[in-house]
Amino acid sequence: MDAVSLVDRMLAGDRTALARLMTLVEGRAAAVPAIMARLYARVGKAHVIGVTGPPGAGKSTLVDRMAAQLRAQGRKVGIVAVDPSSPFSGGAVLGDRIRMQAHFLDPGVFIRSLSTRGSHGGIPRAARDIVRLLDAFGMDDVIVETVGVGQTELDIMRLADTVIVVLVPEAGDAVQVMKAGLLEIADLFVVNKADREGADRLQQELSQMLTLRPATEWTIPVLRAQAKDDVGTTPVVEALERHRAFVRTHDRRDERERARRAGDVLDILDEELHRRVREGLASDGLASLVESVRAGTMDPYTAATRILADPQALAALLAKEPRHG
Amino acid sequence: MDAVSLVDRMLAGDRTALARLMTLVEGRAAAVPAIMARLYARVGKAHVIGVTGPPGAGKSTLVDRMAAQLRAQGRKVGIVAVDPSSPFSGGAVLGDRIRMQAHFLDPGVFIRSLSTRGSHGGIPRAARDIVRLLDAFGMDDVIVETVGVGQTELDIMRLADTVIVVLVPEAGDAVQVMKAGLLEIADLFVVNKADREGADRLQQELSQMLTLRPATEWTIPVLRAQAKDDVGTTPVVEALERHRAFVRTHDRRDERERARRAGDVLDILDEELHRRVREGLASDGLASLVESVRAGTMDPYTAATRILADPQALAALLAKEPRHG
Repeated sequence: MDAVSLVDRMLAGDRTALARLMTLVEGRAAAVPAIMARLYARVGKAHVIGVTGPPGAGKSTLVDRMAAQLRAQGRKVGIVAVDPSSPFSGGAVLGDRIRMQAHFLDPGVFIRSLSTRGSHGGIPRAARDIVRLLDAFGMDDVIVETVGVGQTELDIMRLADTVIVVLVPEAGDAVQVMKAGLLEIADLFVVNKADREGADRLQQELSQMLTLRPATEWTIPVLRAQAKDDVGTTPVVEALERHRAFVRTHDRRDERERARRAGDVLDILDEELHRRVREGLASDGLASLVESVRAGTMDPYTAATRILADPQALAALLAKEPRHG
Repeated sequence: MDAVSLVDRMLAGDRTALARLMTLVEGRAAAVPAIMARLYARVGKAHVIGVTGPPGAGKSTLVDRMAAQLRAQGRKVGIVAVDPSSPFSGGAVLGDRIRMQAHFLDPGVFIRSLSTRGSHGGIPRAARDIVRLLDAFGMDDVIVETVGVGQTELDIMRLADTVIVVLVPEAGDAVQVMKAGLLEIADLFVVNKADREGADRLQQELSQMLTLRPATEWTIPVLRAQAKDDVGTTPVVEALERHRAFVRTHDRRDERERARRAGDVLDILDEELHRRVREGLASDGLASLVESVRAGTMDPYTAATRILADPQALAALLAKEPRHG
């Protein structure tokens, strides 16, 4: 079946079509632009919730608890678990997913793990497109959970309307949160495993740090939880609901969506140009230049500069079907 | 001082010039191509050693011990510690660096931490160029240490002539090593913290897994160490020396270097085209197209496809100085 028909079936509620589209998107298939163009009119309704924090903070468990409460309210929930950078925790994540699948044999939930080690920004792009698939499919909330707090994770969090940062006492102090750039993206902090030593101190440090910021219309809550025992989930979901209402009434969501759309154009161009350059460099026209670089008679910077400075060479490089000869 | 003069001073042995060049390279300054072209003839002598593995495996400690032994042999050692994805361990890494700096107030050692959260492949590129700076500076060995085992880390490990994968019993089993793609890149396994429970089992699993591979000329050793107590460092350094001799006699190093050079051309083109597209999209010529995407009247995929399909639009987009109007 062609990709466009798959989109139409997915939009009609076919979960198998949704899963197949996710696989295409995750593999960055050539059909991705056609798929996304077909469903773009249907996206923008879901509230996207990003959940991030250091490994071992109990994010999956918290997401599990939150999803249960959102389902109890009748909201349809999509979950995307991104684990690009820690194959060593792969087992645990997979275990969580299996647990969640069992817990939610429920047409109102769709869970997808994204663990492909892609390169060239592939993971944030795949995550973004999978969020949009879930959005177009009709999920009210889409939770994107990332393991780790590196650049890939920050890129992914840019998708979110509400960002929840989950911390644990042993993960470090508030200064490290600031250093990691989490203060700029957090709409809500959760100090998880709050029965452990240091939880009070971490909560106080975070609250203090937040009072030092210029006043904004949204006050970032610092909540405590023990997700494993389902303690503290309700206040987290309530805070999420307050933030959801806040972003809707303050037009912040529309603003973010506009910025995201513009960013998408850049991303799509980058991805396609990368593909064309990779193919173009292998074409006959540039073979001798690349060969002198391989042989060490020309340095790569000189070679690249030469291509970039020559509009004809650049056009040949970027032609959809590089000319051989 | 201009960048080219800095390169000349660095090549004459000026450590301050080296540090300043590293800062330029880390920030992906506009002068990077000129810097790298100037020193390219001087690179290719150093043996590049990649050390990777999961967080908490004791990599920094092992690198510290190895560097001490290499120094005792009179080899000059550069160390690049890359920590792109775990700001939460930033404190510890910084602490290690300070310890190492104190230990090695020695002109034969140069240590650089690389923790900038760059995007668009910036970290692997900065790491690569810093390795080349250390190489051109005259270091005999350059050790690149990465925290984590994600795509960024695997990209960085491609720089290395010898890859050492450090594991600890609690990091998971051999199957996870395979899943993480570490089996394909490892030239040497070290089971660190070998006094802990599970070390025997991990070592056996790894050895068994390695016997299942087709025979190759290099037999991958699986060594045990307790780097903290400086136990097992000598066998690791001896195995490293055997591998160094192996790659030199089997021409594998030249092959890798040729592939790296060709890969560099692609990387440099990608980086520059990304910059041009970002600027080009902001130019007057494309403002109305981008505006319809922001407003939601055109989807980003259609907009990008339209630009890509029009050679003139593409040429305008990628012109070094985008035309306004």
